[in-house]
Parts: sequence; C-alpha cells; structure tokens
Amino acid sequence: MAKRLMFEKPLGMRDTLPFFYNQKKQARELLTEEISNFGYMFMDTPILEYYETVGEASATLDQQLFKLLDQQGHSLVLRPDMTAPIARVAASQLKRAEFPLRLAYDGPVFRAQQTEGGKPAQFEQVGTELIGDHSSYGDAEVIALLIRSLQRAGLQDFQITIGHVGYVRCFFKEILGDDDPALTEELMSYLYRKNHVGYQEAVKALPLNEEAKRALMGLLKLRGEDEVFDQSKSLARNQECLQAINELKQLYKILKQYQVEQYVSFDLNLISHMDYYTGILFEGYAPNLGSLLCNGGRYDQLLPSFQLNASATGFAIHLERLVEALAKQSNGDERIGILVDDDTFADGLKQAQDLRQEGKSVLLQHVDQVPDLQQFKAELVEAIDLTTGGGHDA
Amino acid sequence: MAKRLMFEKPLGMRDTLPFFYNQKKQARELLTEEISNFGYMFMDTPILEYYETVGEASATLDQQLFKLLDQQGHSLVLRPDMTAPIARVAASQLKRAEFPLRLAYDGPVFRAQQTEGGKPAQFEQVGTELIGDHSSYGDAEVIALLIRSLQRAGLQDFQITIGHVGYVRCFFKEILGDDDPALTEELMSYLYRKNHVGYQEAVKALPLNEEAKRALMGLLKLRGEDEVFDQSKSLARNQECLQAINELKQLYKILKQYQVEQYVSFDLNLISHMDYYTGILFEGYAPNLGSLLCNGGRYDQLLPSFQLNASATGFAIHLERLVEALAKQSNGDERIGILVDDDTFADGLKQAQDLRQEGKSVLLQHVDQVPDLQQFKAELVEAIDLTTGGGHDA
Repeated sequence: MAKRLMFEKPLGMRDTLPFFYNQKKQARELLTEEISNFGYMFMDTPILEYYETVGEASATLDQQLFKLLDQQGHSLVLRPDMTAPIARVAASQLKRAEFPLRLAYDGPVFRAQQTEGGKPAQFEQVGTELIGDHSSYGDAEVIALLIRSLQRAGLQDFQITIGHVGYVRCFFKEILGDDDPALTEELMSYLYRKNHVGYQEAVKALPLNEEAKRALMGLLKLRGEDEVFDQSKSLARNQECLQAINELKQLYKILKQYQVEQYVSFDLNLISHMDYYTGILFEGYAPNLGSLLCNGGRYDQLLPSFQLNASATGFAIHLERLVEALAKQSNGDERIGILVDDDTFADGLKQAQDLRQEGKSVLLQHVDQVPDLQQFKAELVEAIDLTTGGGHDA
Repeated sequence: MAKRLMFEKPLGMRDTLPFFYNQKKQARELLTEEISNFGYMFMDTPILEYYETVGEASATLDQQLFKLLDQQGHSLVLRPDMTAPIARVAASQLKRAEFPLRLAYDGPVFRAQQTEGGKPAQFEQVGTELIGDHSSYGDAEVIALLIRSLQRAGLQDFQITIGHVGYVRCFFKEILGDDDPALTEELMSYLYRKNHVGYQEAVKALPLNEEAKRALMGLLKLRGEDEVFDQSKSLARNQECLQAINELKQLYKILKQYQVEQYVSFDLNLISHMDYYTGILFEGYAPNLGSLLCNGGRYDQLLPSFQLNASATGFAIHLERLVEALAKQSNGDERIGILVDDDTFADGLKQAQDLRQEGKSVLLQHVDQVPDLQQFKAELVEAIDLTTGGGHDA
C-alpha cells in the first residue's frame, strides 16, 4: 500500500469512534421514537442518485455535490439531502398511498467541502416530511414534533426561529417593485448570510425615498415574539404580506395549543439557502452551539417538479450537532470483562452467558492474548479474573 | 427537470419503503443487542475513503468499486466493505487502545453492478472484528457470536460452513508442488465459484499420476461433520495441513462448549473471493435463501499492511438477506389515527398526547386535508374520528 495516504481520510470525512457512536445512537433512538409516536413512517433511499433527478432538485450548490460517473456513463451524486429523494419516492412508488403522507428518515447526506478543517462533508440527518397537507395544522405539527423530539433527546435549552419566505418576497415587491429582480436577490442574499451590516450599507446606497429606506431598514427589526405581526403592518400592507402574516398568526395559535410556544420566536427576515421553500420556514439553535442545529419549512413546489400535485412541509435535525449540544459528560464503556485460561474457559463462558442473559455487556477473554493485563482491566467497569492467581476487581 | 430519468435510480440502487424499513430495523436492533452483549463496541467510518488506502486493501474487484475524484484530484471510493476501514482505524486512532479490540459496525457498503436486475449495489452489513487475538478461542467466539446473533434476530434454520484457507493452500502444495502457481489458482478459482464439475474436468486433464488425481478429487468430499478431520489425513499429511486440521479440531471443541455445534459443519474446499483470509473462514446459509447470508474468517495479514502487527478475525451479516430469510409475514403499520376539525383539534391533540405517552404511534390529522377518508382510515389500526358526523372505527 502507498504510504502517503495510509491513515488519511478524504477532506471532511470523519471516523465515529465508540464513545461518540453510542452518544449518537442514544440521541437517534430517542428522536426516532418520538417521530414514530407522531405516526410518521421511516423509510430510506439510496446513497447514490442520478444527478438529473435528485442532484438538480436538491437546491444544493453544484460545487458542494459529490459527483461520479457510473459504468453506463450517467452522472451520479451522493445525496446532498433527503427531501428531494423522498419527493421522488412519494411521487412514484408511494403516489397511490393515502395522503397526507407522514414520512421520516435517518441517514447520511453529503456536501463536498473546499478547505481543510471545515464542516464535515458527511453528516447524519434525522427528519420528517408531511406531504399533502397544506394547512397551518401541518406546519404546526412539524414544528411541535421537532420541539418534542429535541426534548425527548434530552435537549433543554433551544430556540426555533420561524419566518416566512413568502413574506420577504412580497415585502420587497411592495417596496422595490418588480423592475429590478437582481436588487431583490442581492438584498435577500445579505439576509441569507445574516450580514445585516452589509444589508444596511446596500440599502443606504439605493436611490430610493426616505420612506422606502425606512421600511427596508425596518424589516431587520421584525424579530421577536408575536408582537412582530402588528409591527409588520406599518412596513408593508399588500394582500400577500397580510396573508403571510395571517398564516404565521394561525400557526402561532396552534403552537400554543401544543404548548410549545416558549421554544418559538419569529424573524420576518429569515431566509434559507434552500430555495425550494415557499411558505413558513424555520431554524433551530442551541446556545452552546455555533452552528445551525435543525431547520425546515414548507416547500409546495418540489413535488410538482416530480409531477405530483402536493404540498409538503418538514424538518431535518443535524444529529452530530445535536449530540454536541447535548454535551453529555458520561456514557461510554460499561463492559464487564471475564478473563480465562484453558482450564477456566468453560466456567467463564457459563458466567458470561448468565450475565449476558441479564442484558449486560460482557466480554470473555483468554488471558494469553492480552498484552497488558492491568491496562486491559482498567478499561472495564468490572473485571472477573478466573485465571490462576487472578482475583476480582470492580 | 429532465423527464427521462425522473423517477429512476442508478443501477442496483433501491428504495427502502416503510414496511421493509421496519423489518430491517427490528433485525438490526436484535443483532446489535447481542453483539453489544458480547462486549463489542460499535463504531463507524466514512462512506468515502481514499482508493489508495481502503480501495486497494479491500480485496474487492476493481470493477466493483464506485470511484470518484475529489476536488483535490485524489481518487476516492465508496467503501466496498467495513473490514479494511476498521483496520485503518485500529492501526491509527485506536492503536493505543487495549488489545484485543472488540469492534463492531453496522452500515451500508457498495459494490458496482454490471447488469440490470442483478445484485444490489448498496447493501447493509452488520459485523464484528476481533483484533489482536490469534487463538482458536477468538475464532470460536466470533462464530458463536454470529450464531447467537442470528438466533436472537429470530432465525431458526441456518448452517455455518467452516473451512480453512491454509489447509487448501498446503493441500495443493503437497499434491501439485510449488512449480505451477497458476494451476493452483485455476483449481482454487473453480472451488471459489463452487463449480465442482469444472474442477473435476480440470483435474482429469492434468498430467498427474492416479494417486495425485485421486487426492485432488478427494478434496471435494471433505465436507460434513468432524469426521472430515480424520478423512483428510488420507489425502494430505504435511505438517501445515495437519496444523490446519488441528486448528479446526480445537475450534470445534470450543464451539461445543458454546453449545452451537448443531449449526456448524465443515467444508475443507471452502474458498473465499476475499483473498485477505489467512486461516479459518466460514459462510452461512439459510435454506430459503439462494445467496450467502453471512461470512467471515481470520485475516492475519490485513493489519500488518496498515503497519499494525496484529491478527484479526470477524464476520459480516448481509442484513437485507437476513430479513428475507426471516420472511416475516406481519409487522408494519400499527398506527392510530385521530381525525379532527377546527372545533375538535384541541380535544384530538389531548387524546393524541395521552396515547403517545403510552408509547403508541398516533397521527393527528385535520380532516380537510384528507382526500379520501375511507381509504385513509383503512390504513390505520384504529381511527378515532372527532369530526362532525364522525364515529369510532376500530
């Protein structure tokens, strides 16, 4: 084997050692239990998809896609998210199933990284898709389920910020008109990058009257509890904007019935890079985490692009980040070890079987194969030494 | 989106719909419980690896590897098995951990297919690696754990066939000598493909004396219970062959202590395409399954190729095939559905929360979003209709 890369992994690829594996497993099981409790059915799709199908639909930047050619010359991608593959399945194999469909997933997704030490290029998403329900009840269910899932996993301190991409679009339409879509995109891209200073500088430089500039600046302040609904009316009052605000009001009302309102706030300048969102959208953060924990929203145009006339709403949780946020201190290795030699193997086997029967994790080890007995025992919660001269260490 | 491939998946790629997903999940959980009970620690490695590292070490045919170039120009592969990646980790990040190491894994592996309707190109393996134990106790533990895991998953009728690649090699060396390694490889490739007719034809055509031919033909008969150990001595009696037979005898003795001997038989002409095996090797079959259910063996040369001087032995179970072998009839959808309208949402939410508290899978659905109520209810184990005019269907 060439020595240069012997122990190396591709850029952004990571190993998951047993301690972190167990933390992830525990969080995954709790999330999936809660999601199943809400009547969502888990499914899976392949890691590899056609670029033409899922790569194009996924709204992931082209340079972030892992692409390869198959032996038939088709361009393939490693799935960059699960929403587009599930849309493909919903629009084909499941199109005769009873709608609304409640689907869920748990698996790795892939986004190529450009630099060392950056984000992981493979990460695990646990998420849901509610397909065929275009009501605020659907949006509220998805957000309430997200909150209940995070709670079930043990996360106590987190916040879900809700916006409405339809509101932002009609807001700019009212203030800027339809004449300069590039300007709207420029301002939205500042919002997406949460670069409020850049946004303000750009607004100041615009050839607009003071009232329009005040409205554009005012958008940044539409963040907080439900008082933003009233505040918004002083900035934009066209029919579409009022409709978006009414959807958010209705959503909030249902979220209060779910008794999850303390986890929720609103941000009317929230924008996602996922440009398939069409209505409400949301992002979740935990205070001890520098990056996005989870996100989601309503995307009513994706399924029509697969020839299925259905709306949809869903969320995705970044599992490794959730584990980081949980910042669990204990866990790990609770294995009992039984050390044997040729004479005591049968006895050790009996003891191991009895303890395993009780659900304990028990390793049975012939002593001749252990290079350092003391170290070996130190890694165990309990060592039962049945060899000559051995004892019982707890 | 281009319509040509809209609903298509790459060759050999499959979706996992909820019913099969649940069957897989159940089998996976039982297998991993038993493996954890034996003190094995689960870990994971990335889907993508360097070709130079894991691709070359994996012993998978080059044409079966999914290859791609990363943005730095390195050749990458989708992992074709888990043994080589785990060897990489054992030889680097875990090389200071206490040996013997008991590691386990569960995840997708990838082997490109050349034809439509063939084998899956992505499948899930659950397996173990016992690293640093070169005794028959290690081999026996791995086989006993394999058997206990399959039993725990609910499989009743299966057989593990055990061979010894060292035996086959020294058998041919005694009969054919060292002069014509290509001939040995040719005969071994018939055995690998289980093409006994081809093997017999090839032997007949060889320019050898009758005694040698009789021995070569006799190899095919060395299959069955432990009587093959004695039978083998009439065919080859060099020191290495006797040593291999002694290893198998010792293994069998320990397997009887584990009380798993009824699941085990021997086949001294068993060969694997995985050419990293160095000692015992085994394959598992279930009667209602046309293809290999699980396999494994001892590979004492793989870790040295990662500069770690350690022996190893392990198994891998093909999860989808196990589910097929289990041929479960029932499972699936046991969801309760509560149908509400605006007036009864709060009441329905309360009932849903109570039932979920009991661990039930409960979906709450606003009736306006259901296109076909009768069909919708038909998919539920119980429908609670709180809408005006609704009733309670069980």
